[in-house]
Amino acid sequence: MPKIVDHDERRREVLSAASRVIVRDGIDAATTRAIAKEAGYSNGVLAHYFADKDEILLSALRHSHRRIRGRLTGKVAGMTGLAALREVLLDNLPLDAERCEETRLEVSFWSRSLASERLAEVQRAEAGELRAAVRELLEQARAAGELSTDDDLDDVAERLLALVDGLSLHLLLYPDRMGRDAAERLMTQAVERL
Amino acid sequence: MPKIVDHDERRREVLSAASRVIVRDGIDAATTRAIAKEAGYSNGVLAHYFADKDEILLSALRHSHRRIRGRLTGKVAGMTGLAALREVLLDNLPLDAERCEETRLEVSFWSRSLASERLAEVQRAEAGELRAAVRELLEQARAAGELSTDDDLDDVAERLLALVDGLSLHLLLYPDRMGRDAAERLMTQAVERL
Repeated sequence: MPKIVDHDERRREVLSAASRVIVRDGIDAATTRAIAKEAGYSNGVLAHYFADKDEILLSALRHSHRRIRGRLTGKVAGMTGLAALREVLLDNLPLDAERCEETRLEVSFWSRSLASERLAEVQRAEAGELRAAVRELLEQARAAGELSTDDDLDDVAERLLALVDGLSLHLLLYPDRMGRDAAERLMTQAVERL
Repeated sequence: MPKIVDHDERRREVLSAASRVIVRDGIDAATTRAIAKEAGYSNGVLAHYFADKDEILLSALRHSHRRIRGRLTGKVAGMTGLAALREVLLDNLPLDAERCEETRLEVSFWSRSLASERLAEVQRAEAGELRAAVRELLEQARAAGELSTDDDLDDVAERLLALVDGLSLHLLLYPDRMGRDAAERLMTQAVERL
């Protein structure tokens, strides 16, 4: 009887292995060989599922984003406007181990996207989704009279998203300079002062 | 007569070559071999000046920071408080070709610092200098009565620096989403509203 292979399960295993290697050793070290070893498969098996290293990395990024969206959907269930916006932005900060790993993956991609148009396109599309969600929640908040600011909502969205990425980066790079409490307080303040 | 070698000049050439390779092809591609080729030297000559790839990259980062400090010193000559702060923060945004290259170098280092404690230490020290400068200018501004905010100045400094890095990153990654004018306006506003 031929061995039955669960291809989806294998693909997920490879993606988890890729994320672990990137987070632990950096994106430079995430060669197909290193990812295959981490996953416990041969290079040949890997080649069956992914065309090249970039495709593995892209899939790992998308996989991470799906997980984030799933978690977030639960967090904001039943919320609208400013309350939902606060949850979305706070969820993007690396305030626990899981989100630290997600953010490390993200920062690794920023750098690699600058040198690869293919990765940059995916990065732009994924970031565009978050921007659209933030913009939509800001409109809800304004319609509900929750905002004091008269600023253009595109400006507000860019400012908040820049703050999220900057704080996230600094939490990872300079953990002794600004703690998680401070980052959470600054992000919450930015929403409350809108 | 023995050939006279200007070692400082050679070292500078290698560092410029390293920066060009990182900015053009990404930090992954900046191998000692690629940097030697770009500089027009053999791998052996490179090994004479730098112990390994990380040392070349670190020197390139420090070299870029020296250039930034030199430029900035000229820009803020005779200025204090908020006026100087605005110049310092705006100078950190990639608003022209030179500063785009500097920021690409910076983003490449963020990612690599996450996987290398040696690079992370330098990254922290260099970022600490900028933070100290921003903190000092905020104190001048408060002492001169230029600030409306009662916020803790450490919080204000972290917020401004997070905004600078976030806006810089987004200008590079999503140039069609937020233009240079918008980034400059948002940064200026953040200072004016203090």
